[in-house]
Parts: sequence; structure tokens; C-alpha cells
Amino acid sequence: MATELKTHPNIKDGWFREATTMWPGQAMSLEVQDILYHEKSAYQDVLVFQSKTYGNVLVLDGVIQATERDEFAYQEMITHLPMNSHPNPKRVLVIGGGDGGVLREVVKHECVEEVVLCEIDETVIRVAKKYLPSMAVGFQHPKVKVHIGDGFPFLKSQLNQFDVIITDSSDPVGPAESLYQANYYELMRNALRPHGIISTQGECQWLHMPLIKSVLSFSRGLFPSVGYAYTTIPTYPSGQIGFIICCKEPNAKLAEPLRRWAPEEEARLCRYYNADIHRASFQLPQFAKTVVEEVMAADIALKEH
Amino acid sequence: MATELKTHPNIKDGWFREATTMWPGQAMSLEVQDILYHEKSAYQDVLVFQSKTYGNVLVLDGVIQATERDEFAYQEMITHLPMNSHPNPKRVLVIGGGDGGVLREVVKHECVEEVVLCEIDETVIRVAKKYLPSMAVGFQHPKVKVHIGDGFPFLKSQLNQFDVIITDSSDPVGPAESLYQANYYELMRNALRPHGIISTQGECQWLHMPLIKSVLSFSRGLFPSVGYAYTTIPTYPSGQIGFIICCKEPNAKLAEPLRRWAPEEEARLCRYYNADIHRASFQLPQFAKTVVEEVMAADIALKEH
Repeated sequence: MATELKTHPNIKDGWFREATTMWPGQAMSLEVQDILYHEKSAYQDVLVFQSKTYGNVLVLDGVIQATERDEFAYQEMITHLPMNSHPNPKRVLVIGGGDGGVLREVVKHECVEEVVLCEIDETVIRVAKKYLPSMAVGFQHPKVKVHIGDGFPFLKSQLNQFDVIITDSSDPVGPAESLYQANYYELMRNALRPHGIISTQGECQWLHMPLIKSVLSFSRGLFPSVGYAYTTIPTYPSGQIGFIICCKEPNAKLAEPLRRWAPEEEARLCRYYNADIHRASFQLPQFAKTVVEEVMAADIALKEH
Repeated sequence: MATELKTHPNIKDGWFREATTMWPGQAMSLEVQDILYHEKSAYQDVLVFQSKTYGNVLVLDGVIQATERDEFAYQEMITHLPMNSHPNPKRVLVIGGGDGGVLREVVKHECVEEVVLCEIDETVIRVAKKYLPSMAVGFQHPKVKVHIGDGFPFLKSQLNQFDVIITDSSDPVGPAESLYQANYYELMRNALRPHGIISTQGECQWLHMPLIKSVLSFSRGLFPSVGYAYTTIPTYPSGQIGFIICCKEPNAKLAEPLRRWAPEEEARLCRYYNADIHRASFQLPQFAKTVVEEVMAADIALKEH
């Protein structure tokens, strides 16, 4: 049974502080109104607090996953970048994403017939339904199916099944570590149908260029089209997070949406995403552009399916 | 005389913490290696510390102004956006910018004949020369002239003098408050030559949309072409900062650089800016785009020169 403790080692003097070895020497702090939930689940430390100015906040293993104030920037971009780069996505898989935010975005695309979510930790889903209702609303849609379990064996059982796969994971320390490795990307490729696209949480270009370079490099050995985009989001480390986007179609122009909403639909459906920011999100600062172009120019042979 | 105190109220347990009423409920912290300098100047509290992972850090009135690790993102964008939107900038004025970083960027444009810097607080220049040499290098260039004093009277004496004016100021609390008001923008306009362009620190779209809206609104009454762009920068609040760009030329396409370096020159001269990110920096998230488009569509009469 879950034990609810109304204290947390990362909260002191009324502030939650996010300091980890993944971004040494820097820490974001949010002022706490109330600790709503704390449990050590089978997989991770799960904390929810009500902040003074960012709404409710979900924290896993000491790292902010979502705040009600800015989560839309991440959910919309990790979802609509691949969804609008696909000509007609009908079957979608979400790995992770237990808060429901990505589901909420996927079902905005009326062409979708089914979206499956595979989350390893059912605690996250339960907690989101209680404390992050504006995200967990995604679970209520009739097109959604939920599978509780490890993404690895699930993916192995799914050959040629999905048009888009979105990996909405935590950082590569803890339960999500294996999701940053080549064999995971190969499983995703094999689970995709022709023209299939993946989008994965791709860390921060200000903090993790070596990791990003490594993931892009092995992705190029698995997918003919690979790109890197990013979104700004205040409560993620250094204020932004990136996405690795890969497509089975050769020469796919990932930065150019194949589909787009009319501007008034965009304004109704989205708070961050629009077709212009889709294009702009692939334009990187010089220091990152140089590294990404180096990977793209490298002679990497495509591994056969 | 300056008093050097090796303590600071914002540093506790080895961490500097940036918490202010301008962004309530959130605070960025940087781990401190050593306090290098602290003085209350005639205008503000001036602190320099050596951080563990961001190099030396300049703090004014408790707010991070520049760190050696990420300052280039700000200096390059506030400078090259207006400079490359002007067909041939020869005379440039910098208001503020006492750390020298903007000067360093301005003189990368060989067409520049003279760049004048007007800084109210000579302490900032002195401290930057000692502790931020990679920024203060800007002061060494033979095209640079320095004027210590208030930007207001200085601008009043400069009619029709400059091609580009860059306002590199702190936030609108403290000595820079008056720089966010219409009469300051009017003085800048009058100091510009035909086709002149201004670029000013434009706060953060995640935090200060009402202020941004107000500045854009009165700018539209003074300039026929107005735009808003932004850069990402980890150590500014919420990880980004914007720029108000205004041009005396009607229908100026500010998002499209009129001049650009060859790609290899870009890679040699810049770590953040390139022509693609120039274009991309004007593409705003939907929540900000809606507000900016509203201001641009409003019926605002242009005030005569």
C-alpha cells in the first residue's frame, strides 16, 4: 500500500529544489504551497506538490516532470511535431507519458483511430488522475487503451503496428535509462508501419550534447531521416528540452509539417504549437547546429530492417 | 571608495539564489566556488562570484546579468538581430552593456566605423574588465568610445546620429526602470538615422507578457516596423529572454536578415547566432503569438517625428 508522507527531502523552508548530478552546479526552485502526495513506488520516488505560482507539480526521483502552468509546451511539441509530419497517423503508441498529457494532445488529431499508452509505473497514472486532472483528461478518450508494463517487451510484441511512437520518458537515470539506447530505437523502428515516425524526449542542448550526439548517431543507423528539435519550457533544466525525431521515409522533411490546422484551429487547440514554431523548432543555435550537422554528414550505414 | 565584502545576502550554504518579486515563486540557483567581488555602487548592488559550473557570474541587485558559460546567447542575439537587419550599419550606440559583451559582438561587423557605449555605472565596466575579460575585451577595440552617464540626457543630445541603437539594460526595477517607457523609445527614434534600427532587452514571454504588450504597443506609435524575437539562455529567468526590434523603415522584414555571413564565417564568429536562428527567433509560441498579433493588428497611429 502507498504510504503518504507529507514531507520530502527536496523541500526545505517552503521551497522545492531540483539539484541532481545530471546538471551539476545549478538548481531550479519552486515555492511550495502544500505537499499533496508522496510515495516511493516500485520504480521511483513520486511527489506531487501544489506550488505557489506553477499550479500542481509532479516530481519523479527529485526531477520536475510537469507543472500545470507550463506542461503544454512539452506535451504539444513532443506530440504535434511527429503527428503533423506524418501524412495520416491512425495508430499511435505512447511509451511512458503516465500523466496523460501526450494522450490529450494525440486525440486532437481526428484521423487517429487508436492510441495505446504503455507506462511502467501505474502509480504515475493514479496520481495524475487525482492531482493533474487537466493532463489526465487524456485517459478519458474512447480511442485510448492503457497497458501497464515495461516498454521493452511490449514493443517486441508489436511488429509493423504504429504510425507514430512517442517516448515521453524521464531522464536517463533510473527507470528510463534503457530508453536512450540503440536497441530500444531498433524496437521502435520495427514496431512502426511504413512512413512511421518516432519522437522521443531528447534532453537539453545546453546540458547534454554528448548524449544527444550519441542518440542521433545510432538513430542514423536505423532511420533514413533523423532530426533534432526543441521547445522552451521554464521548469525543465536550463529552460528547454529537445526531441529526437526519426522517420522511416527517406528524405522526409521533418521541419516542414505535412499537415497543419487552419490558424484559427491552431489557436483553439494549441497554446504552444503552431506551424511556424514547428519549422522554427528545428533551427538550432550555432553550437548545437555544428554538432548535429557533423552527425548528419558522418558516413553511417543504414542497418537493414 | 569601494568596500569589498566577501559575503552576500543572496548566497547561503554555498549557493547563490535568484529570487525576486519580478518572478514570484521560482528561483534559479548556482553553486558558488568563490565570491570574487561585492560592492554597493552609487546605482546598484554589484556582485561577482566564481560559480562551480557557469564560470564567473555578474549579479546586479540580486539578478544574474551574465555568466561566462552562456552569455554569448544573449550578446550575440541582441546585437546581430538588428545589425544584420540593417543594410550597412556604420554608427552604433549601446545603452547599458557595461560588461562589454555587446561591444565585442558589434565590432564583428566590419562595416562599423564607430560604436559608442553609454553606461550609467562605471563600476560595472571596472568589474567586468577585472572578472569578465572575455566580455570586456569589447572595450579594447579602437572603434569603441565610452561615455559614462545616464542614457536619457545622452540620447537627447544625439539627433540623427546612429544606424543601430542597442539597449542592453537590466530589468525594469532599479536604475533601468525608465528604459521601458515610451519617452525613452522616442529619444532612441530621434537619435536614429534613416533606416535606423533599435534592439532592446525585451523580458520573457513566459513571465512578462503584459509588459511586452505595453512596450510593443507604444513602439508601434513610434516606428513603422516592430517585431519581437527571443533567445534561449539557461541562467535568465525561465531560460529565455526577448528583444523588442523596431525599425524606421516601413514594412521592414525584420525576421529576414538583409546581410549574412557565409556559413563558415558564422561558425567562426558565432556560438549562438546564425541566419536560420535569426529567422526562427521571431516565431513565437501560440500563447505569445496571439498577443503580439493583436498588438500588430491594433489601429495605432504613427506619431510624427
